[in-house]
Amino acid sequence: MKYGFSARIQKTPKSFIREILKVTQKPEVISFAGGLPNPSLIDTEKILEAAEEVISKDGRNALQYSTTEGYLPLRKYIAERYSKRYGIKADPDEILITNGSQQCLDLIGKIFIDKNDGVVIERPGYLGAIQAFSIFEPEFFPVNLSGEGPDTEELERIVSYENPKLFYGIPNSQNPSGITYSKEKRKEISDILSGTDTVFVEDDAYGELNFSGKTLPPVKKYLPELDIMTGSFSKIVSPGMRMGWIYAPEEILDKISTAKQASDLHSNYLCQRIIAEYLLSNNIDDNIKRIREEYKKRCTYMIDLMNEKFPESVSHTNPEGGMFIWLTLPKGYSSMTLFDKAMEKNVAILPGTPFYCDGGGDNTARINFSNSDEKDIEKGIEVLSKIFSEWKI
Amino acid sequence: MKYGFSARIQKTPKSFIREILKVTQKPEVISFAGGLPNPSLIDTEKILEAAEEVISKDGRNALQYSTTEGYLPLRKYIAERYSKRYGIKADPDEILITNGSQQCLDLIGKIFIDKNDGVVIERPGYLGAIQAFSIFEPEFFPVNLSGEGPDTEELERIVSYENPKLFYGIPNSQNPSGITYSKEKRKEISDILSGTDTVFVEDDAYGELNFSGKTLPPVKKYLPELDIMTGSFSKIVSPGMRMGWIYAPEEILDKISTAKQASDLHSNYLCQRIIAEYLLSNNIDDNIKRIREEYKKRCTYMIDLMNEKFPESVSHTNPEGGMFIWLTLPKGYSSMTLFDKAMEKNVAILPGTPFYCDGGGDNTARINFSNSDEKDIEKGIEVLSKIFSEWKI
Repeated sequence: MKYGFSARIQKTPKSFIREILKVTQKPEVISFAGGLPNPSLIDTEKILEAAEEVISKDGRNALQYSTTEGYLPLRKYIAERYSKRYGIKADPDEILITNGSQQCLDLIGKIFIDKNDGVVIERPGYLGAIQAFSIFEPEFFPVNLSGEGPDTEELERIVSYENPKLFYGIPNSQNPSGITYSKEKRKEISDILSGTDTVFVEDDAYGELNFSGKTLPPVKKYLPELDIMTGSFSKIVSPGMRMGWIYAPEEILDKISTAKQASDLHSNYLCQRIIAEYLLSNNIDDNIKRIREEYKKRCTYMIDLMNEKFPESVSHTNPEGGMFIWLTLPKGYSSMTLFDKAMEKNVAILPGTPFYCDGGGDNTARINFSNSDEKDIEKGIEVLSKIFSEWKI
Repeated sequence: MKYGFSARIQKTPKSFIREILKVTQKPEVISFAGGLPNPSLIDTEKILEAAEEVISKDGRNALQYSTTEGYLPLRKYIAERYSKRYGIKADPDEILITNGSQQCLDLIGKIFIDKNDGVVIERPGYLGAIQAFSIFEPEFFPVNLSGEGPDTEELERIVSYENPKLFYGIPNSQNPSGITYSKEKRKEISDILSGTDTVFVEDDAYGELNFSGKTLPPVKKYLPELDIMTGSFSKIVSPGMRMGWIYAPEEILDKISTAKQASDLHSNYLCQRIIAEYLLSNNIDDNIKRIREEYKKRCTYMIDLMNEKFPESVSHTNPEGGMFIWLTLPKGYSSMTLFDKAMEKNVAILPGTPFYCDGGGDNTARINFSNSDEKDIEKGIEVLSKIFSEWKI
């Protein structure tokens, strides 16, 4: 049967990652390919208590339809946390609850992107954002991302000449690179965008996962009217509940709310209530501290092994948080070949190409450390280093 | 601040209903305006048991990321129910779990509608569909809906001359009108669409709520390749969990899955697991029977009072299921005025105009019966009939 599919869906990249993850999910595979939070750090006991409390005390309301913006006490909690962590005064009326932070990108695409509008994105950039925005058929303008953050000269040029609608970035522990923008880069970005029509979409999915617990000021602090922050409970409470939020100026949030209503009326209300109950009855900071310590341990262990065993020609980032390390092989070496070779030994890595919306990145790969224990990290790095030895690189 | 919002969001109607519902939510108001399932029929006790079972036995998996298509045992349950209820053999691979059936419309819009593509919709038509599709900037072609179903001559003309991408309809207990298509209309629709490029989007949110428990064959039965059914647990288990599904040919579902992944990765996995556990440990038919009986009682009571107290010039539909009755006042009388007058006496109805995507319908109104008890129905109908008396219509 030949169906009349839209132009947009034909332009949306199918998730290469999803196809790869199918191969790598066999139990015998040591997988650095995925992006899963460590399940041992999900606080199932306390979440069960919260679920029991909500359903037994107020089930009929918690299971009924609710408002598009989301449960007010949850929005208040989120607003207060912005004030506590970043010293920015968010109002609950600037917060709307979404299905994970992925849905934020869909809603932002809906309200901003007309066909061929410009969208600036980091290079490498988060694949989920490339997919979400592709639906609205923008023109992507990648800016190179390295050590301290995005190439701001490139950004300035694109912003002046192309007048893009959005710049999407992840200043804290970026996916896929693990890079955190320096304070200076954040200030520069705000200077470049200030007075323009370009809104910064500041994805902060990993902000809580800085190993040191320290925070850098979000760009939002310098650019309140032209910045939309997105956040998520996936990395700190539970990914399966698909709970995230948008924090945006009210004028933007009003349009987001119209788009959200058209998309699915509102997010799962039962789980909004459960998360709110969980957050208000427990000290989330205890759990976040545990996650940070565990991830730091795994990351440090992996980096130490990489430094010890990998040839100098294979470089890697040194993340201060998050879940990913970024590998760069010498020019001419393909991470797809590395993937194939490593899979022969039941080790999975994620080739970097899908993170380059304009092609390239053949010699890069994303390595996840959050979901493997020390034994598996040791085995996996050993397998990779042997491949590099054979290649004599 | 002037933001560069997309053309699409500026064309999407803001929910008039949502604004009205804010006014009508005061406790002293008898509201026929909303569309809420009756909360007393939500099986909170058994849902709590299911939640406890899932989180205590398999919490770490249930709270983790999952697949885009959704939890397989839930998709199997849904597929088997199609076979049991409608005698159509659905495959679990043709089912994808969504955030309520509203999200089905967003995903279908994404994969089919390019700007200015034709979309046929009932007149009056479901406002949520008008909103969801508007995001993708189609041209709407309304077909009149009355007694036995849509005007098929009009439909045939539109399909031949305009080659629309989609025809969206609700054959069972339509929202807002309460009309159920006759078997003949269903067959006619399939004859008209067969061999064309127009896909029928068959919204079956109310199919389980037929008072008699009897079913008519869905159009899907006659037109398997050109029909997408959408379904929902909102009316039979819980609306707050936002759980629905798409049932479509695999070639379509493959594109839906790409769009779903770009939209929010997957639906709330915890609640997919809870609903599956609830459905597999209980006989949902017992609860559905209770809902049907209760809604039938309320509907019959309301219709009897309307027949007794309303003037003959005010006509109403006689639903065989669902949650709504449709009122038509004599030409020249406005349901907005009726709304204002009734609100003075703390009774709320829903004016019909937003259900007409091409304007009109000023003399129509939607009346919900599922969420009021007999005492409130009596009081409310009394208030409306007094207004009609004053108007001498």
